[in-house]
Amino acid sequence: MPPEKLAFVGGTGPEGLGLAVRFAAAGHAIVIGSRSLERAQEAAAKVRVKVPQAQVEGTVNQEAVELGEIVVVTVPFAGHRDTLAALAPVIGAKMVIDVVSPLVFEGGQIKALLVPEGSAAQQAQALLPGASVVAAFHHLDASSLMRIEKPLDADVVVCGDHPQAKLRTMALAEQIAGVRALDGGPLANSRYLEEFTAVLLSLNRNYKAYTALRIVGIARGGRPG
Amino acid sequence: MPPEKLAFVGGTGPEGLGLAVRFAAAGHAIVIGSRSLERAQEAAAKVRVKVPQAQVEGTVNQEAVELGEIVVVTVPFAGHRDTLAALAPVIGAKMVIDVVSPLVFEGGQIKALLVPEGSAAQQAQALLPGASVVAAFHHLDASSLMRIEKPLDADVVVCGDHPQAKLRTMALAEQIAGVRALDGGPLANSRYLEEFTAVLLSLNRNYKAYTALRIVGIARGGRPG
Repeated sequence: MPPEKLAFVGGTGPEGLGLAVRFAAAGHAIVIGSRSLERAQEAAAKVRVKVPQAQVEGTVNQEAVELGEIVVVTVPFAGHRDTLAALAPVIGAKMVIDVVSPLVFEGGQIKALLVPEGSAAQQAQALLPGASVVAAFHHLDASSLMRIEKPLDADVVVCGDHPQAKLRTMALAEQIAGVRALDGGPLANSRYLEEFTAVLLSLNRNYKAYTALRIVGIARGGRPG
Repeated sequence: MPPEKLAFVGGTGPEGLGLAVRFAAAGHAIVIGSRSLERAQEAAAKVRVKVPQAQVEGTVNQEAVELGEIVVVTVPFAGHRDTLAALAPVIGAKMVIDVVSPLVFEGGQIKALLVPEGSAAQQAQALLPGASVVAAFHHLDASSLMRIEKPLDADVVVCGDHPQAKLRTMALAEQIAGVRALDGGPLANSRYLEEFTAVLLSLNRNYKAYTALRIVGIARGGRPG
């Protein structure tokens, strides 16, 4: 696929940074967005440390979204609604990849919150009616993403109601070494993906591990029938 | 582990039958329960075809539960609440493995219903306050379970709040050839497991496949830390 310009909203956290590193390594241009210009520029510098040839800059969320062709949402869920509502006019009809899982730590456990719209990604679509929202990348461990020298061993299940945006996201995912992308159906399925992140984080804690997901039973290169 | 006597509530459907076949092959005694004595006996005969040495009988749900040491719930979700409410006095303080995912087919899509108690398994625990309820086996494909000559290639994530019941369930799961059991935390995590069944069924349809789940990143033989 041709190089894209990817804008990360909330790209200074571990998941956004990890994905930014992998996509920079794949030759895409990266704009790290943050509420703070300084933190965005610091995060861009961290990407450059991992990927010296990276085409990467850091700026405030609004400018990042203006610059990007594809918007990747990696804010904490607590800021998901307000951040996207504020950016809606700038995002307009762009393609949006929502990576957010609505999780909270409560009573020593990781729990998934129920979102009125159904899921974080469905909330994004409701706030951004002109955009093509896709849900993906929830299950890629942030610290594994940062270890750029090591291929992952993971499937990325992608959900969405916009076929072209879904295909573009799947192509992007497969540019991360060791990742296979799978078509997980409509955006209504995104709740199940987002919530399953809580299972992987529970397993990480129980087993002191960095888990990922593989779907068995689909031949490599299998395409939706 | 020593042989157990497993009673299947709603054991005539594909998932119950598939698990019964695998556990019969592992040397456990099986009682297939159904609302219909005739259908229960037919299902028991099907188990015997797959596992000639099986110790298996079929009877009505209530008698099955009386006979079993461990109760495995494999009813369709539509009958989950009423069936367990009626059987509660007989189930008493037994161990219960709930395999049910609250799914519906709606508008050509597979959807997970929200359950007031949180999940099907949490509903079971609420209806059976004296029982030790564990959630497991949601992601094992029924037709793959029936092909007894072929080992599976799957992880079974087990959730529950009763440590002994969880360990017994994990030991049972690992008696199915090719299965690894993982401790997925408290019963509150069961919703995420149940709902993920909708993702696997969507993938099955999209890719004309029989999918299963593997968790990458936990060494074989890894034990909760």
